[in-house]
Amino acid sequence: MCELVFVGLGLNDEKGITLQGLEEAQTATAVFIELYTSLLPDFSLKNLENLVGKPIQTLSRHNLEDENGKALFDAAEKGKVAFLVPGDPFIATTHVTLRVEAAKRKVPTRVVHGASIISAIIGVSGLHNYKFGKTVTIPFPENFSETPYNVIAQNKQLGIHTLCLLDLKAAEKQFMTISQALTLLKGIEEKKKQGIVTDDTLAVGLARAGSNQPTLKADFVGELQKFDFGQPPMTLIFPGKLHFSEAEALVAFAGAPQKLRSMTR
Amino acid sequence: MCELVFVGLGLNDEKGITLQGLEEAQTATAVFIELYTSLLPDFSLKNLENLVGKPIQTLSRHNLEDENGKALFDAAEKGKVAFLVPGDPFIATTHVTLRVEAAKRKVPTRVVHGASIISAIIGVSGLHNYKFGKTVTIPFPENFSETPYNVIAQNKQLGIHTLCLLDLKAAEKQFMTISQALTLLKGIEEKKKQGIVTDDTLAVGLARAGSNQPTLKADFVGELQKFDFGQPPMTLIFPGKLHFSEAEALVAFAGAPQKLRSMTR
Repeated sequence: MCELVFVGLGLNDEKGITLQGLEEAQTATAVFIELYTSLLPDFSLKNLENLVGKPIQTLSRHNLEDENGKALFDAAEKGKVAFLVPGDPFIATTHVTLRVEAAKRKVPTRVVHGASIISAIIGVSGLHNYKFGKTVTIPFPENFSETPYNVIAQNKQLGIHTLCLLDLKAAEKQFMTISQALTLLKGIEEKKKQGIVTDDTLAVGLARAGSNQPTLKADFVGELQKFDFGQPPMTLIFPGKLHFSEAEALVAFAGAPQKLRSMTR
Repeated sequence: MCELVFVGLGLNDEKGITLQGLEEAQTATAVFIELYTSLLPDFSLKNLENLVGKPIQTLSRHNLEDENGKALFDAAEKGKVAFLVPGDPFIATTHVTLRVEAAKRKVPTRVVHGASIISAIIGVSGLHNYKFGKTVTIPFPENFSETPYNVIAQNKQLGIHTLCLLDLKAAEKQFMTISQALTLLKGIEEKKKQGIVTDDTLAVGLARAGSNQPTLKADFVGELQKFDFGQPPMTLIFPGKLHFSEAEALVAFAGAPQKLRSMTR
């Protein structure tokens, strides 16, 4: 049966796939993967191929975006195609485009969800899910704009948290660090002087979410910039107003300064 | 080794667990589960016990919240405990409390993430991740307040989307439907008359996200209330300003009215 199944790989290694996702790959006519929209720190393609029991073909940004996923749709004419992607499949908007293309071509699609950084960082930080505002990506300097700063400012005014995803170029093995992101934001602060990202602003950094050794640290920006988070990928949260239980969680899980407890409402 | 491992079960059935999550359960001294914070539509405890190869003890809200997870911590004194929970473990804030308790008791914790409704609905709807504002839960009438309406209004003013989780009492098998949620919100509209949730407001409903037969439908509230979404669980999105590609995705995936294309910016 002609079908395209998007399968999420979760956050870290080949064991982040669900039992259902593995079954879909095992029973597919052809299996593809992309590894450029995110970094899976401990992932081995060889190990995943052993689990699936068949070769897995890697598709590049060029294959998926410039060629509109031609390889996937050619294979889908012959049967079920499993397309494996990091995290939860459609958090990378580029895959939404592929799904629209599939609809145009009358190729049925299904989704096997995976763990995503979006829910993982909320949970691991201990901050309340319903207090997060807009998410923003901090781009590399060549694409930098004031948008991330403005989103953080807008959320802060509303008393809510901002999740910042950090830019990456997986093919070139370039991953923005928390320290770089903070330097870029402080550069905007220099210009705008709204007191949104200063050395005294509380922030929470998380590296390698979903791995066996994630690093979570909450501190003021001046201190956080000196903290060694180890290897990428990394994300960053700027908290808004903290509930007491959130402050307690940041102290317990993220080594936040004790004085945070007195900053809550 | 004394340890408490939180394992996400994902969204639908026993195959929503990751390979790593299954391994953690198989190698644990004791395995517990809670099934009251969310509904896994096609889940079978028997099947999961067969996969894990050992009995799994179900914990109630009373066990976890009133007794502070005593059963978990008693078992953790004797070895590794795997605690299985729907979705991604800490999206239910009650489990954050357990993790704080573990920190106080010096019981090491780890997290094996699972797929969450938070990322699933964003992906499946085709709406852009970075355009979602605060999430809100629509509570049953006995706990209802104006908060959900106000959150939707605030997000709309900012041109961004609102994800609404619908209340549930899993133990009593009570699950709010999309139609009920819309009726409750229209009740607030009657009073506040801000034009936030009227029959002409666009909304997106999703039932059984992550199952093999999810139902996704975008339409104006008056029409959406008549739509048959089938079985729970359900969630609801109130879109803010739509990007053209978002409107296109809603038409392609969610059967949205064609005129949506002309309402984009």
